[in-house]
Amino acid sequence: MQIVTFGEIMMRLTTPRHQRFRQASNLEVEYGGGESNVAVSLANYGQQVRFVSRLPDNDLGECAIRSLRAAGIDTSYIVRGGKRLGIYFLETGAVQRPSKVIYDREDSSMATLSSGDIDWDRTFDKVSWFHWSGITPAVSASAAAVCLEACRAAAERGITISVDLNHRSKLWQYGKTPAEVMPELVELCDVIVGGSYEAERYFGIEVEDKEDFTPLAKALRQRFPKARHIVTTLRDSISASHNTYTALLWDGDTLHSSPTYELTHIVDRVGGGDSFMGGLIHGLIKWPNDLTYALRFAVAASALKHTIPGDVNLVTEGEVVELMEGDGSGRVRR
Amino acid sequence: MQIVTFGEIMMRLTTPRHQRFRQASNLEVEYGGGESNVAVSLANYGQQVRFVSRLPDNDLGECAIRSLRAAGIDTSYIVRGGKRLGIYFLETGAVQRPSKVIYDREDSSMATLSSGDIDWDRTFDKVSWFHWSGITPAVSASAAAVCLEACRAAAERGITISVDLNHRSKLWQYGKTPAEVMPELVELCDVIVGGSYEAERYFGIEVEDKEDFTPLAKALRQRFPKARHIVTTLRDSISASHNTYTALLWDGDTLHSSPTYELTHIVDRVGGGDSFMGGLIHGLIKWPNDLTYALRFAVAASALKHTIPGDVNLVTEGEVVELMEGDGSGRVRR
Amino acid sequence: MQIVTFGEIMMRLTTPRHQRFRQASNLEVEYGGGESNVAVSLANYGQQVRFVSRLPDNDLGECAIRSLRAAGIDTSYIVRGGKRLGIYFLETGAVQRPSKVIYDREDSSMATLSSGDIDWDRTFDKVSWFHWSGITPAVSASAAAVCLEACRAAAERGITISVDLNHRSKLWQYGKTPAEVMPELVELCDVIVGGSYEAERYFGIEVEDKEDFTPLAKALRQRFPKARHIVTTLRDSISASHNTYTALLWDGDTLHSSPTYELTHIVDRVGGGDSFMGGLIHGLIKWPNDLTYALRFAVAASALKHTIPGDVNLVTEGEVVELMEGDGSGRVRR
Amino acid sequence: MQIVTFGEIMMRLTTPRHQRFRQASNLEVEYGGGESNVAVSLANYGQQVRFVSRLPDNDLGECAIRSLRAAGIDTSYIVRGGKRLGIYFLETGAVQRPSKVIYDREDSSMATLSSGDIDWDRTFDKVSWFHWSGITPAVSASAAAVCLEACRAAAERGITISVDLNHRSKLWQYGKTPAEVMPELVELCDVIVGGSYEAERYFGIEVEDKEDFTPLAKALRQRFPKARHIVTTLRDSISASHNTYTALLWDGDTLHSSPTYELTHIVDRVGGGDSFMGGLIHGLIKWPNDLTYALRFAVAASALKHTIPGDVNLVTEGEVVELMEGDGSGRVRR
Amino acid sequence: MQIVTFGEIMMRLTTPRHQRFRQASNLEVEYGGGESNVAVSLANYGQQVRFVSRLPDNDLGECAIRSLRAAGIDTSYIVRGGKRLGIYFLETGAVQRPSKVIYDREDSSMATLSSGDIDWDRTFDKVSWFHWSGITPAVSASAAAVCLEACRAAAERGITISVDLNHRSKLWQYGKTPAEVMPELVELCDVIVGGSYEAERYFGIEVEDKEDFTPLAKALRQRFPKARHIVTTLRDSISASHNTYTALLWDGDTLHSSPTYELTHIVDRVGGGDSFMGGLIHGLIKWPNDLTYALRFAVAASALKHTIPGDVNLVTEGEVVELMEGDGSGRVRR
Amino acid sequence: MQIVTFGEIMMRLTTPRHQRFRQASNLEVEYGGGESNVAVSLANYGQQVRFVSRLPDNDLGECAIRSLRAAGIDTSYIVRGGKRLGIYFLETGAVQRPSKVIYDREDSSMATLSSGDIDWDRTFDKVSWFHWSGITPAVSASAAAVCLEACRAAAERGITISVDLNHRSKLWQYGKTPAEVMPELVELCDVIVGGSYEAERYFGIEVEDKEDFTPLAKALRQRFPKARHIVTTLRDSISASHNTYTALLWDGDTLHSSPTYELTHIVDRVGGGDSFMGGLIHGLIKWPNDLTYALRFAVAASALKHTIPGDVNLVTEGEVVELMEGDGSGRVRR
Repeated sequence: MQIVTFGEIMMRLTTPRHQRFRQASNLEVEYGGGESNVAVSLANYGQQVRFVSRLPDNDLGECAIRSLRAAGIDTSYIVRGGKRLGIYFLETGAVQRPSKVIYDREDSSMATLSSGDIDWDRTFDKVSWFHWSGITPAVSASAAAVCLEACRAAAERGITISVDLNHRSKLWQYGKTPAEVMPELVELCDVIVGGSYEAERYFGIEVEDKEDFTPLAKALRQRFPKARHIVTTLRDSISASHNTYTALLWDGDTLHSSPTYELTHIVDRVGGGDSFMGGLIHGLIKWPNDLTYALRFAVAASALKHTIPGDVNLVTEGEVVELMEGDGSGRVRR
Repeated sequence: MQIVTFGEIMMRLTTPRHQRFRQASNLEVEYGGGESNVAVSLANYGQQVRFVSRLPDNDLGECAIRSLRAAGIDTSYIVRGGKRLGIYFLETGAVQRPSKVIYDREDSSMATLSSGDIDWDRTFDKVSWFHWSGITPAVSASAAAVCLEACRAAAERGITISVDLNHRSKLWQYGKTPAEVMPELVELCDVIVGGSYEAERYFGIEVEDKEDFTPLAKALRQRFPKARHIVTTLRDSISASHNTYTALLWDGDTLHSSPTYELTHIVDRVGGGDSFMGGLIHGLIKWPNDLTYALRFAVAASALKHTIPGDVNLVTEGEVVELMEGDGSGRVRR
Repeated sequence: MQIVTFGEIMMRLTTPRHQRFRQASNLEVEYGGGESNVAVSLANYGQQVRFVSRLPDNDLGECAIRSLRAAGIDTSYIVRGGKRLGIYFLETGAVQRPSKVIYDREDSSMATLSSGDIDWDRTFDKVSWFHWSGITPAVSASAAAVCLEACRAAAERGITISVDLNHRSKLWQYGKTPAEVMPELVELCDVIVGGSYEAERYFGIEVEDKEDFTPLAKALRQRFPKARHIVTTLRDSISASHNTYTALLWDGDTLHSSPTYELTHIVDRVGGGDSFMGGLIHGLIKWPNDLTYALRFAVAASALKHTIPGDVNLVTEGEVVELMEGDGSGRVRR
Repeated sequence: MQIVTFGEIMMRLTTPRHQRFRQASNLEVEYGGGESNVAVSLANYGQQVRFVSRLPDNDLGECAIRSLRAAGIDTSYIVRGGKRLGIYFLETGAVQRPSKVIYDREDSSMATLSSGDIDWDRTFDKVSWFHWSGITPAVSASAAAVCLEACRAAAERGITISVDLNHRSKLWQYGKTPAEVMPELVELCDVIVGGSYEAERYFGIEVEDKEDFTPLAKALRQRFPKARHIVTTLRDSISASHNTYTALLWDGDTLHSSPTYELTHIVDRVGGGDSFMGGLIHGLIKWPNDLTYALRFAVAASALKHTIPGDVNLVTEGEVVELMEGDGSGRVRR
Repeated sequence: MQIVTFGEIMMRLTTPRHQRFRQASNLEVEYGGGESNVAVSLANYGQQVRFVSRLPDNDLGECAIRSLRAAGIDTSYIVRGGKRLGIYFLETGAVQRPSKVIYDREDSSMATLSSGDIDWDRTFDKVSWFHWSGITPAVSASAAAVCLEACRAAAERGITISVDLNHRSKLWQYGKTPAEVMPELVELCDVIVGGSYEAERYFGIEVEDKEDFTPLAKALRQRFPKARHIVTTLRDSISASHNTYTALLWDGDTLHSSPTYELTHIVDRVGGGDSFMGGLIHGLIKWPNDLTYALRFAVAASALKHTIPGDVNLVTEGEVVELMEGDGSGRVRR
Repeated sequence: MQIVTFGEIMMRLTTPRHQRFRQASNLEVEYGGGESNVAVSLANYGQQVRFVSRLPDNDLGECAIRSLRAAGIDTSYIVRGGKRLGIYFLETGAVQRPSKVIYDREDSSMATLSSGDIDWDRTFDKVSWFHWSGITPAVSASAAAVCLEACRAAAERGITISVDLNHRSKLWQYGKTPAEVMPELVELCDVIVGGSYEAERYFGIEVEDKEDFTPLAKALRQRFPKARHIVTTLRDSISASHNTYTALLWDGDTLHSSPTYELTHIVDRVGGGDSFMGGLIHGLIKWPNDLTYALRFAVAASALKHTIPGDVNLVTEGEVVELMEGDGSGRVRR
């Protein structure tokens, strides 16, 4: 069975060697985006994945497609059109200096996508899982509308829907707030990944004790009764170079938890959440009866992502399992 | 006395070592644009130059300003605002494969400039020369309007105005044709640089014998009586790597011509016209009574530009004169 | 309908900037090989292509596959196994210094391929064209045996077979000569690309006048009556940096010829023949009734290849046609 | 009001990626020096800054000037002359391996500067603050003499003078000791930055308890009664990659202290003191009545410098304040 | 007196900046191997060293020799012949992701070395120390045979023999186990470096308490009575980026120990053991009566290696002593 | 028998990719100099070579030595001392833009060499050929004095002496002219390489017809009767990218000439003369009875140098002979 992820893939332009923007005489080029990063993770674990988006019909759109095809993703459902590929500029921080993102994605082909552009019948043929994130409805009104179209089409076909709530404060510039847009979309989801920050901004759900996930999970379930798994990741940022990372999953009954990874020193933090999401979907599909194992897989996958430059997580299932099973010593394999 | 050039400066992202876009894992970053390139040439020759434009109030706008300041240009007349820095992607061709430009400059801070944004009184204080090009009115209706505002303000103050007609077929997307926009602007100019291609598209002026510049120059003078110098450059493209380059200047009386340079193998052809324009303005200011010398200076300057990577011409007056005076042997200076 | 190409894809390690091997502190990595290069060309022109080979089941084999997938080639027919990925080291020459190849491909997964490893039934399903080259039977006895297996399977199914005779003097180290191996294979082919050098070494065919292709073509047809198109390319090497390139095709009746391209200065000469072959197959499929046009397409495609770094030709059909239709001026597209 | 800093700017040639000198096949080029680094910091915070020095009249001197102009520094007070640009080679250490500096600055244009070369009347016009460091008098007798000339000229005009005592053991090769040269210079200063090491070597001031700064500050004030602020930075080097950093300021009454930053892992430690100095001058000018805040600003600025490659601190006032106000988490800004 | 080390030197191809293999568009090239790395360390400390091996008679073999000559090693005892230079591919890990080595050394010139290829009489002329490691007999049966030949020749001449037991699980592919091969070789050695892992696999020696080295050392001495020094290194891998490192030496009487170094964050871990070995041989030669000092030298040398990219340890005796004598602060030397 | 070359080796810092100095964010590092470049050529042809010079006792001096050792040169006669390694900065030109050298070699260790520093007895032991060039006496009075010391010591021992007259206009800054210094030195030489330019400046020898070498050669022989071979190279600079190159040798009787090579497009012109000199010495030693062959070897060697980046000529005797014997086609060797 196939998995579909839907969202925007952008050109990522990164300053090398912790340079600030004004120091860079060249920029590293890659192609990434929340939902395409999830697709790459899934393909690496051996899943059959389709990535759906809209890309301009020029060489840069072609470059983005090539990067996806290289990863083994089916790109034949991508629509070509619109004026430009979204871009994001990334300055990689260190120690107390945060990484900095400059988005240049307005009026991208994905932002100007319209209802009807994507043939959801064809796209969802033989599909069992659909994934989207809070970034897409944040991009433009029409992207939000197509996202709703997609969720409804998926729900009608009984496809499992997962969402990463993912709030990006620099987006949501088109005149609507997440609170106006997100509830209708999230109602259709089976798996929700998010935290108290999004719960408050998107749904007005506030909990007293932010340290305790169960009340928040219960409140989300009450509001979104279709959601069978409520998941959150917990990142403690000691510095831009040193984080800890763990996650929790509430299945309506039990709160599953994972070990905490000490991530020092992070090679590239971007895509850390997407690699968790990719690991979680794979885990839920492969080990549906061992939710703790699925969650631990997702967290170990994300830990490995922090050691790899770029947006995407280039690890196999075997490599993740090796870390899960306890070997974080990093001894040379030779 | 000061010179003002007005236009858009963009981020230029170039594939290294003749790579095609899909091969590039990093892109070389620079900041350039027709009129800012002219400003850099003039500053290199020791002129006092102000560059006027609109740039976003973010790190990328700051990067563009830093590159201009490094060159010794006065950037204090630049207006900050708008959403984004224009970008252009460049794939460097070779032999029979042409270089390829992908413009991503729509909705840039310069394109969304409005009337009144620039204080022309302050900008033109102590200024004797104003330069613009056909690219600015091609970008957007409002840029065209501000360009007209600028030309009128300059003309009122008796400032010499030069224009490089410079047609870019991928621009002019905002609903007007050059024929609707350009004549009113060019009427105010004292120096016109352009060829039969622009004369036809912009002004409907056609001449029978395209090999002979005098009839075209005369027709332009008749249409634009204020223009005291009508200038054209002649480039013969044998391949992307091998061009010849020369120029002609008609002063109402006499047709001045320059030697022809054999440019093989070109290091970077982009900015070749801008370096000619920079050389011409400098030549006309410094040697007003020797128009042939001024023209020869401009052509030699442009020849040297073709040997330098990037948009801008990094040569001194002395280096140009050395080439003009006959030493094109390229012997090592040591 | 599908096309299959069969052969070895290797890791190519190239010294940058014309360095000699002893100067290189890093090497550029790519993946290429005669027949996979043909596959990439075909995919760029919009053909459906399968590349068939044997690759080791390690990260390096995976890298080779990713490069093919990026190009849009179907890699699902590749067999995994064997010990190592073949490697070739390339030192890029210039002027009077030739480029130098060091092969390190012995005992590669492809060289140790055995009969039965590839399921030709499945591989040739829905296939109309099969391409191989003289490199594969030169690699090892078993590769030669599988090559014969492939040709027979293709011939039985009525699939068109093309061969690039391609002699590599550093190969053929396994105890057989081309004369012992090649005739049986070439007998099954419909399209033969080669020259007097291979005709002599492989088949003992000598012609008196090496300037005149027709007698050679006729001799080849006599020996291999199935061959409907006999094709040769003519490269004049003025230096490592400057070649001329043209080609001839004899269809049994008429000798078709193409224009001659002046290739100066070559960016990367490796893969020039493969890009011709890719263009020729595409041309023969798309314009079967205009053999001159097909040949001209192949030659123009190859001319463009010489301007692109790497083994493969990254050009579209449109770009080739643009050059064929006369514009070799290399003017910037903007 | 304007600030003047005076000293030597050099070409800095750094081995990339922690390479030792013998491994480097290329070196990163930058331009930096104690006092020009201070100037860059001040310009980044919006101050008007002039940098004064002597540079050779060749392309390398021009490169140094361009780097300063890019930063927005007024370079029109720099004198051109002398034979060469000073150079320093830097090998970046890690863990237990220290960074290593090879100075090649003898007979530089700055070292051969003579009295009268700089027109202090013009240089100090409209200036309210003058900064120099202990490096300049260490370079040559004539540089020391001009430094005294500068301090006297500044003191006469009532300009605030700050000094970073900065001992460099590889300098002071011209026959005088710091103890012979420094006291006369420091007497004229209003702000002194230094520690027990310099106090002892320069002024023979020894204190018993090196952990307690107050006695040292008092002793310095007694010796240099003009000094209203005595400041020291405290760096604990756990390894080349991991330091802690804090500072103290004694204002004659009160000892102000800053938080201690944990700097792990340092990207580039060079220029850490200069970035402190730049932050301190800015702090003392902007918040003259909140010396603790000024000191905390300086320390936070320096903490950020350690995360940026190169000699200079490329941060805005806003970025420093953000860190001061408690957010050292390094979370991505997006 | 001369030292001889004997083994294989390979081309090392490393992915830059923590990239995974599939991300690399170029690979860093170096030449290294266990025993040649030891030779480089020794040459850096001023010892006279000969490296003995077999290398192909092509440009790549020449490159390996040049790298050794640059280090000051006598390469005139190296035999040329065989088909290929061994290669190893290295992907540099970080944090929880281990570094990964892909060996491509089968059928290398060293693996196909035969008895009689090396003239041990000439090689051992004026030699006082011979070093080999457990890698050489793991490569092929013939390499193991020549290794035995070497050890016997050395032992006959009374040359001190040292061995680093060094188990590589990806080798030993030729049909014999270490237990069949190693004992006969180790019997001839005077200095043995290894741990419980090798003791068990090679000699079937198991000790109960793996924390206590003395029983293991005693068991090894009992089995190999010629061995006067039994040495082990203890590495605690907290992550791929963070290790601790120390060592123990048992001289038949006393257990000597060194301080433990905190290695965070490791620049390049490969060659850490070889740099210990090089330091130990130098220490035992230079300070034969202070075994603790010799051991501490070896450990400090190895600590420094972890801060240097590449296989070899580029430090002088003076630099190691500086660290041994307590300064691990990494303060800039300027 | 051994060859000695004597002169200065410098650090060469080159801007990459035809960048001008102000564009370079990194510089390529190499070590080269006229006479050490000759030594490298000779070592490549299998000669035993000693290079003699004075180098600072720091890491940069060590780097220069390592580069020579890598090439197989005996560096044990180099004296360590003095303050600094000479540097030269190189900006690589193209087309009409000349390459530009900035020397920064004053007060280098070689320039401050004194009489007695070098033990010529030991240096010339078992030596049959000594080579120096006009650069060394141009550097400083003491270098000139030591050069004379060397020539006399060589002449006394009957060692063949060759000189490349090599005028560098940016040197000779120490108060003497070549005419005062060179004659005494050249009197001792057996082989003189130079042209009319040096003959005039150094010896006041003028000839009427500069096209005809014989009269000049005769005049030089008359003045320097010991010189048995008078040689000149003829370079026609069409542009910085395109030269032709040939040479003439007069043996007292006959004028030997070589073919003319068309060098287009030159990769690196620096070291072209040194590679000729290295080829000539090798040719005269190996083919003493075929002076035409020796000369042709030298010219072909130099032609190949122009295709290799850097100061030194990295070609084998076999590669030069291949070109001499007529194959300049640059066909790929595979």
